[in-house]
Amino acid sequence: MTTYTPPLKDMEFVLRNLAGLDDITRLPGFEECSTDLVGSVLEEAGRIASDVLAPINQDGDKTGAQRVDGAVKTAPGWSGAYQTLVDGNWIGLSSPQEFGGMGLPGVVNAAVSEMWQSANMAFSLCPMLTQGAINAIESCASHELKELFLPKLASGEWAGTMDLTEAGAGSDLGAIRTKAVKNGDHYLISGQKIFITYGDHDLTSNIIHLVLARTPDAPPGVKGISLFIVPKIKVDAQGNLLEPNDVECVSIEHKLGIHASPTAVLAYGDKGGAVGYLVGEENRGLEYMFVMMNHARLNVGLQGLAIAERAYQQARAYAGERIQGKPVGSASRTPIVDHPDVRRLLMEMKSEIEAMRGLAYVAAAALDRAEASPDEGTREEAKRFAELLNPIVKGWCTERGIDIASKGVQIHGGMGYVEETGAAQHLRDARITTIYEGTTAIQANDLVNRKILRDGGQSLRALLTEVADLATELARDNDPLLTDIGASLTTSVEDARKATTWLLETAPTDARQAAAAGVPLLMLLGTVLGGYQLARAARLSTARAGDAGADQDFLATKVKTAWHYAEVFLPRSASLAAAVIRGSRTVMSLSPEQL
Amino acid sequence: MTTYTPPLKDMEFVLRNLAGLDDITRLPGFEECSTDLVGSVLEEAGRIASDVLAPINQDGDKTGAQRVDGAVKTAPGWSGAYQTLVDGNWIGLSSPQEFGGMGLPGVVNAAVSEMWQSANMAFSLCPMLTQGAINAIESCASHELKELFLPKLASGEWAGTMDLTEAGAGSDLGAIRTKAVKNGDHYLISGQKIFITYGDHDLTSNIIHLVLARTPDAPPGVKGISLFIVPKIKVDAQGNLLEPNDVECVSIEHKLGIHASPTAVLAYGDKGGAVGYLVGEENRGLEYMFVMMNHARLNVGLQGLAIAERAYQQARAYAGERIQGKPVGSASRTPIVDHPDVRRLLMEMKSEIEAMRGLAYVAAAALDRAEASPDEGTREEAKRFAELLNPIVKGWCTERGIDIASKGVQIHGGMGYVEETGAAQHLRDARITTIYEGTTAIQANDLVNRKILRDGGQSLRALLTEVADLATELARDNDPLLTDIGASLTTSVEDARKATTWLLETAPTDARQAAAAGVPLLMLLGTVLGGYQLARAARLSTARAGDAGADQDFLATKVKTAWHYAEVFLPRSASLAAAVIRGSRTVMSLSPEQL
Repeated sequence: MTTYTPPLKDMEFVLRNLAGLDDITRLPGFEECSTDLVGSVLEEAGRIASDVLAPINQDGDKTGAQRVDGAVKTAPGWSGAYQTLVDGNWIGLSSPQEFGGMGLPGVVNAAVSEMWQSANMAFSLCPMLTQGAINAIESCASHELKELFLPKLASGEWAGTMDLTEAGAGSDLGAIRTKAVKNGDHYLISGQKIFITYGDHDLTSNIIHLVLARTPDAPPGVKGISLFIVPKIKVDAQGNLLEPNDVECVSIEHKLGIHASPTAVLAYGDKGGAVGYLVGEENRGLEYMFVMMNHARLNVGLQGLAIAERAYQQARAYAGERIQGKPVGSASRTPIVDHPDVRRLLMEMKSEIEAMRGLAYVAAAALDRAEASPDEGTREEAKRFAELLNPIVKGWCTERGIDIASKGVQIHGGMGYVEETGAAQHLRDARITTIYEGTTAIQANDLVNRKILRDGGQSLRALLTEVADLATELARDNDPLLTDIGASLTTSVEDARKATTWLLETAPTDARQAAAAGVPLLMLLGTVLGGYQLARAARLSTARAGDAGADQDFLATKVKTAWHYAEVFLPRSASLAAAVIRGSRTVMSLSPEQL
Repeated sequence: MTTYTPPLKDMEFVLRNLAGLDDITRLPGFEECSTDLVGSVLEEAGRIASDVLAPINQDGDKTGAQRVDGAVKTAPGWSGAYQTLVDGNWIGLSSPQEFGGMGLPGVVNAAVSEMWQSANMAFSLCPMLTQGAINAIESCASHELKELFLPKLASGEWAGTMDLTEAGAGSDLGAIRTKAVKNGDHYLISGQKIFITYGDHDLTSNIIHLVLARTPDAPPGVKGISLFIVPKIKVDAQGNLLEPNDVECVSIEHKLGIHASPTAVLAYGDKGGAVGYLVGEENRGLEYMFVMMNHARLNVGLQGLAIAERAYQQARAYAGERIQGKPVGSASRTPIVDHPDVRRLLMEMKSEIEAMRGLAYVAAAALDRAEASPDEGTREEAKRFAELLNPIVKGWCTERGIDIASKGVQIHGGMGYVEETGAAQHLRDARITTIYEGTTAIQANDLVNRKILRDGGQSLRALLTEVADLATELARDNDPLLTDIGASLTTSVEDARKATTWLLETAPTDARQAAAAGVPLLMLLGTVLGGYQLARAARLSTARAGDAGADQDFLATKVKTAWHYAEVFLPRSASLAAAVIRGSRTVMSLSPEQL
């Protein structure tokens, strides 16, 4: 069994110094959320993560979710762990108090979510999906549906799912064929959904499926999709459970990882049609999905960060214990952490993780500001910023998360390839994160088309100007490490600007080449913006180092971590910009037949 | 079931045009090996790969090797497939004819090996390990031992293994504790070996273990290790099987991948000592291992290439069939291969695979020249070249192979995460290649210390001069693609030179910093030297395009593939050089406690 220790100090550093937690807790609606309260919440959530969720992670992977007699049985310990979350009112941590939630800021929920995903990603998908369902219903459903479903979802008595994918409709939701036929006060739903995370399980008395489907007279494509609430067990107007609805779990997938998270094929309407309730208006389903997309994608980005942190902790522990050879320059056979290449791997893992955490929490905080700021202009600006960061956090944190989990395996050597150590599980689990909730290519499309081209690059350019200003300031600093960081960031932000300019010039005339450049551009921006967060941390840490009572060692660590990132990861901006500007010309130079 | 099609045309292109097959077949000992014969051999080997080995790959992964009643049972179809190799005399393809082998050049064996590893890596490890044992015995054992063991190994009647690792001795072979006590004409071996690939199985009537052990009065560390032949079943002087030897398969590992390749824990001497025969002289075991290391590491590098090729073929096939959305710029819903980002992934996979194949075959050909050239100077030069390339091929091809296999999963989207498609298996299988036969860090150590510093960088600099000369020539070419390739290669070779100079200057005073730069330097050289091979291919293809009867389409493909690599992968040399020169200063800036 491998352990997990919540990196509370690092998390609080980011929350307070980079994400502006103190300002957020002063926003209307969050007044009861003091910094002290946040501290207690994180500490308790961390305790649950390390004591309740982490210990059952590896066994869950081994046993997996199982389908027995047509129903899904979750892994050993799952029910007890779920009850712990329910008892502590954790599911509705950031749900509205009106419906029984705790109403905490999303950025606090992000930190809690990071810990739970680190501790046990396969388990924590369940509350994550429920939060997604809560978001969708809260944002788009009628008050009646909210009153019927939200309290029991927020309390965790019921769980939620998101049912988008069909065999022929994955990235392309316009191809959805599931049918919804109006039948009095409800609709009858029929069709098959695949890849439904926690589509069936035994953790709750009911499961509330949010299903994308098409009414008979709907226009074709994405403009004819509606969103429905379809409970597994039918309910009366008071929320009492009635008989089972017409939805069946046909099978669950045998997957590379997250074995204990049941991924179901759900058949709707084999007996005439499942009772479903329309969310909002017909044909606006996709729009509603996009409302909650920011949260959902942020959460998957956090998974990339979380699994990387877990892999890092495990590799660091192994490297501190395992003796193998005499490290060069060591007087004796000290643990392998003293081997320069093991240190390199750990340092790379640490610095990217901290860059990812900085960017992800800043994005989460922007969502809070976009929702809760009293000033409309501030809200609008925060919204644009949050939406710009969203696909970057999702795409970049998950792509890098896989690489970091792979480094964790490497540090273990042969033991990393043997399943009993648990290092390989992190790689297997991480591998889904670049695929679900929109592949990296889908994130890049969103970034390029909706977040950059739509406003003529204005938001991105404003952000890059901020980055460039800090880079210039640091490059002139007297502190040699800050100078290095500033110099490296100056070069990298210039690469990002060139790539942005290229995109704005190219896209109008060659949409295909622009699309071919999307993922490299996303990775470029992730690299630079992650480095920007570390540079902010380094500046602040250097400035505070002289304060009375300052934790010198901790602050020095922040500066050196940023320095490492600036010298190892920021230089990658050059080749990423080359892949955008030069590489994209070459991508389609062969025909499919020539590949 | 996924299929495999041997890329014979690509392979022959590299063999003839980059690796110099025609020259090699004229070397003494290879005279019988005409280019025509090589063509037939490759065709037949390819047929076995696609028709015999590939079809049982996925089932093998599912069932795995199993330990039943203390013995290992191989996966369904394994015995039949093995018999096919034996019947065709394939195991001893490049073994000496004197002992029943076919005596073909190693570079031909490399191509055959690539196909078999592509088709079924878990299976093909068995003949690969036998070839390793043959190499060791052939190079270092007495004539008597050769006569006793080589014919039955080369015919495949018996299989071989390499028993190096112990629980406390992985990368650090100096820590080996297995004992060998002289007892008349043999030794008695006792101790436990772990991670023994095909350490037990039911494919052959005997298994010949090559075991590293220590005699009672041996000096400590690597200078006190001897190499022994320890048959699973004892044999008399005529090679007849007697009673079982004192070696037992205690368990097999549950691994991330290569499930059908049994990885055994072997206990020697529980009943008083296993009969073993000393190879060569006492205390020279490590030296003997190094003799065969070049072949073994080249083979694992080929695995990196092979699994990448397999992942590529599968992803390409899926992308050509799967319809999802209307690709930007397409008039209709065409397959996803038309989505620019899918094309990008495939193009990246293809161009790196071809770079890897170029470098790996060139390295294999250098080993042939080092062994068979009539002129001593040529042999010496080829040996230095082969030894320089060896850790680069092993480290670079395997690290990139993992990334390519991961791209294969990505192209499949959600289907890639479901085990039934087989895409995930390639990633799981590939993940071992950077670990066994020396981790990437071990390759980098070898590269830095033995292959660069030992001769003051002379061999590497000579090679980089060749690269720079070609780059200059291409940069001046009239063909615009060659100009681009030349310009990119010019910049990259300059990065490689700077990093080399830095290493030569830094290593004498700071061995730890030099070691921290090892892996980035290895990856930098792999990137540049792979690009060099593609640049050679592009020059040649451009020159030949006008020839009567030339395959214009094929040649154009080669040029564009090289162009893509030059614009996407070669630019990575800058950040890799930065990681070497600037990054290495930062790697050890935190103490282990600060990590």
